[in-house]
Amino acid sequence: MSLLKLKKEVHKANIRLYQSGLVTSTFGNASGIDRERSLVAIKPSGVPYKKLMPGDIVLVDLDGNKIEGNLNPSSDTKTHLELYKAFADIGGVAHTHSTYATAWAQAVKAIPCLGTTHADFFYGEIPCTGIIEDSCILKDYEFETGRLIVDTFRSIDYHYMKAVLVACHGPFSWGDNAEEAVKISIALEEIAKTALYSIIINPSLKNIKKNLLDKHYLRKHGKGAYYGQKKISYYPRHKN
Amino acid sequence: MSLLKLKKEVHKANIRLYQSGLVTSTFGNASGIDRERSLVAIKPSGVPYKKLMPGDIVLVDLDGNKIEGNLNPSSDTKTHLELYKAFADIGGVAHTHSTYATAWAQAVKAIPCLGTTHADFFYGEIPCTGIIEDSCILKDYEFETGRLIVDTFRSIDYHYMKAVLVACHGPFSWGDNAEEAVKISIALEEIAKTALYSIIINPSLKNIKKNLLDKHYLRKHGKGAYYGQKKISYYPRHKN
Amino acid sequence: MSLLKLKKEVHKANIRLYQSGLVTSTFGNASGIDRERSLVAIKPSGVPYKKLMPGDIVLVDLDGNKIEGNLNPSSDTKTHLELYKAFADIGGVAHTHSTYATAWAQAVKAIPCLGTTHADFFYGEIPCTGIIEDSCILKDYEFETGRLIVDTFRSIDYHYMKAVLVACHGPFSWGDNAEEAVKISIALEEIAKTALYSIIINPSLKNIKKNLLDKHYLRKHGKGAYYGQKKISYYPRHKN
Amino acid sequence: MSLLKLKKEVHKANIRLYQSGLVTSTFGNASGIDRERSLVAIKPSGVPYKKLMPGDIVLVDLDGNKIEGNLNPSSDTKTHLELYKAFADIGGVAHTHSTYATAWAQAVKAIPCLGTTHADFFYGEIPCTGIIEDSCILKDYEFETGRLIVDTFRSIDYHYMKAVLVACHGPFSWGDNAEEAVKISIALEEIAKTALYSIIINPSLKNIKKNLLDKHYLRKHGKGAYYGQKKISYYPRHKN
Repeated sequence: MSLLKLKKEVHKANIRLYQSGLVTSTFGNASGIDRERSLVAIKPSGVPYKKLMPGDIVLVDLDGNKIEGNLNPSSDTKTHLELYKAFADIGGVAHTHSTYATAWAQAVKAIPCLGTTHADFFYGEIPCTGIIEDSCILKDYEFETGRLIVDTFRSIDYHYMKAVLVACHGPFSWGDNAEEAVKISIALEEIAKTALYSIIINPSLKNIKKNLLDKHYLRKHGKGAYYGQKKISYYPRHKN
Repeated sequence: MSLLKLKKEVHKANIRLYQSGLVTSTFGNASGIDRERSLVAIKPSGVPYKKLMPGDIVLVDLDGNKIEGNLNPSSDTKTHLELYKAFADIGGVAHTHSTYATAWAQAVKAIPCLGTTHADFFYGEIPCTGIIEDSCILKDYEFETGRLIVDTFRSIDYHYMKAVLVACHGPFSWGDNAEEAVKISIALEEIAKTALYSIIINPSLKNIKKNLLDKHYLRKHGKGAYYGQKKISYYPRHKN
Repeated sequence: MSLLKLKKEVHKANIRLYQSGLVTSTFGNASGIDRERSLVAIKPSGVPYKKLMPGDIVLVDLDGNKIEGNLNPSSDTKTHLELYKAFADIGGVAHTHSTYATAWAQAVKAIPCLGTTHADFFYGEIPCTGIIEDSCILKDYEFETGRLIVDTFRSIDYHYMKAVLVACHGPFSWGDNAEEAVKISIALEEIAKTALYSIIINPSLKNIKKNLLDKHYLRKHGKGAYYGQKKISYYPRHKN
Repeated sequence: MSLLKLKKEVHKANIRLYQSGLVTSTFGNASGIDRERSLVAIKPSGVPYKKLMPGDIVLVDLDGNKIEGNLNPSSDTKTHLELYKAFADIGGVAHTHSTYATAWAQAVKAIPCLGTTHADFFYGEIPCTGIIEDSCILKDYEFETGRLIVDTFRSIDYHYMKAVLVACHGPFSWGDNAEEAVKISIALEEIAKTALYSIIINPSLKNIKKNLLDKHYLRKHGKGAYYGQKKISYYPRHKN
């Protein structure tokens, strides 16, 4: 894929993020990676979505050096880069401050898996990181935010859990490319909303049982997947 | 009615489902039946609503064999079929993961009948199934989901209660045709939302009294119905 | 005012009700009265708003006899008529099942006056009727609903409290004409919503103090009103 | 800047306020000041936003005397003027009755700083005034509302906290100009909403820790700001 195509895809994913209503002010960004060239295309920092053009997308290397673009890359760039480095085969990352996912992140609570909508997208409860250490805030904050996420996933397979809540902050998601990462963000927001209303109705709710989780996740994402029109070949290996 | 007409109707009902905002991602489907030919027209699995054309609607027989169509039918097809088999005179079925109805389903709680909006559509509280047995998940999940619903209606007349919440999953609804099933889905979502806010304000609420329920349900659906512009002739026989 | 003009006004008010998002399904109706001729123009029963034309508006006398129109008048007509009879100088009535006002009605709770938005429109807490008696449901339900409202206003001046919640049902509002009644419905819904969120944050809230209520209500509606561009001359006489 | 330009800017800010969905009925207004001429441009009172033209914007001096315009200025004008007098270098003020911010104001609760979205805009919890004294209501209410806000900011630097909740009323915000004040209103509403949902999920939440607050606020607004495309030069001096 040419870098121009990557920039266009990342632009499109950012616009979709905006149009989905997940973005508060200018908070939110999507990126994509060219794994061969080890270059990441990402939204510039603080640019209103309405004015965002494909040519505004910034290219950086995995050390965060700007390779192409007139604008500064997103202030969250280093977080994205840590995810690309640690999660070897993801192709896109998205970050939002969407209302309901952020409410769970602010509450410092994982989103329990309360139903099949959740299980169709995420293999288990959506983890929330711990609160970032003071030393990490004072050092290299955005880099450390990335480390915190990676740390949270030591015992979770990022292939089957494509989102995380950063405590007191908001959600990050990822996928095969920027478009999938944005799609996961949208699903996450809806699931976060439904989970909130569910626990209002019944505060004692727990995760659904393993068999139901497996059934829904695997009929979409497992070896013998029969949801949709195409077969998907990998099989989840949940580490828990 | 020709099968072409049925497919068009089912297509239209699915589009209406989508436009009503009840659908999360590609979750949601409506179907209709041709009782003479025993053929069911249903949305294909995992196809985005924006791209859905009347020609994409799949025809299956009551055993789930595909009779016409290039795409796979909805992964929920077997659940629809069980409803058509058990509820002898329904003509359409709809399924969504709409936010508020799903919140009640995830909370594993029937929606109490708290007011006349509810009573205008549903004759009593909207039941929630039990949680599906592990053995049923492992056997033929979508078929067993249908069985679970039918089982829940052993003592409820499906003519006067045209919706159900499947525990940890979401709502199904039905009616004379796909259009009515979708209309019920829309009313259900609004009623689920209002019920949620009602119990926040007053957690001790119970079902409204029988006379008020009867009055509202029957003035619309009873023998001497005087709501709207046309008389409706049947009379509810609630089994409870 | 000609009856044609009245019908057009009532049509327009019904359309505004619909466009404001307050209407669930076909639930909701606005009416207006010609006091000289003692004729009421009201929405026909069960007609979808999208298809409603000015010529569909039905004219009835104060006894509920249809004077003009091809369709049946709203099933709530008798309730409207009771309000016109008891509240001698109102010119319009509106009824909705709007989400948040209905949630308070279903909770059988008056909406406390928690802030100045409320005080700008309503002089004190918005009353909720008692639950209608079984005998009244069985007699002439819609007429008795009107009586229940009038009864609730024995000690409340309807000039300064232009809305009521009917327990287990939903709100009615009124004003100088159908347009004002609809405007009050819209304000009521927003106030009901904000009140709900307020009591979630702080469950021990009470009505704001009398002086603040007086200040806001009277600067808009009192003798020396200085809000807006025109002086309003009457002075509220709250009976409590 | 010419007065004509100021009026156009204030008109535009009011229209943006309306389009952002923050305005209930005609409640909401934005103003801007010409510091050289000591003249304030403000929305006229009670005029529907849809009909508001740039020529309708009213000019008043800091004593509240109308200098230009055919309509009465907003009934909240005196509150705006007190803010301009006390907060020496602000250029715009906005006031709304937006749902969630108003819910916190009605609950008479400051909005705790629960996450980075909040910290990106506001340096600490968003204060709520005390309930206005009866004597102040009876004297010169809108002037006293301004005094109450100024009083609340005795120990808070208005440069780093650009919004306040007036108890039992609603939010005011300010900034370099009317446009920024409106932008703050919009962010405030989103933050108020997310905070509400956060405390529903976890009622024991407290403000995020100082280092995280500092990090986010200062990376956008501090001396060495690196968010966005332009450096901002001042440094917050929080008085607490």
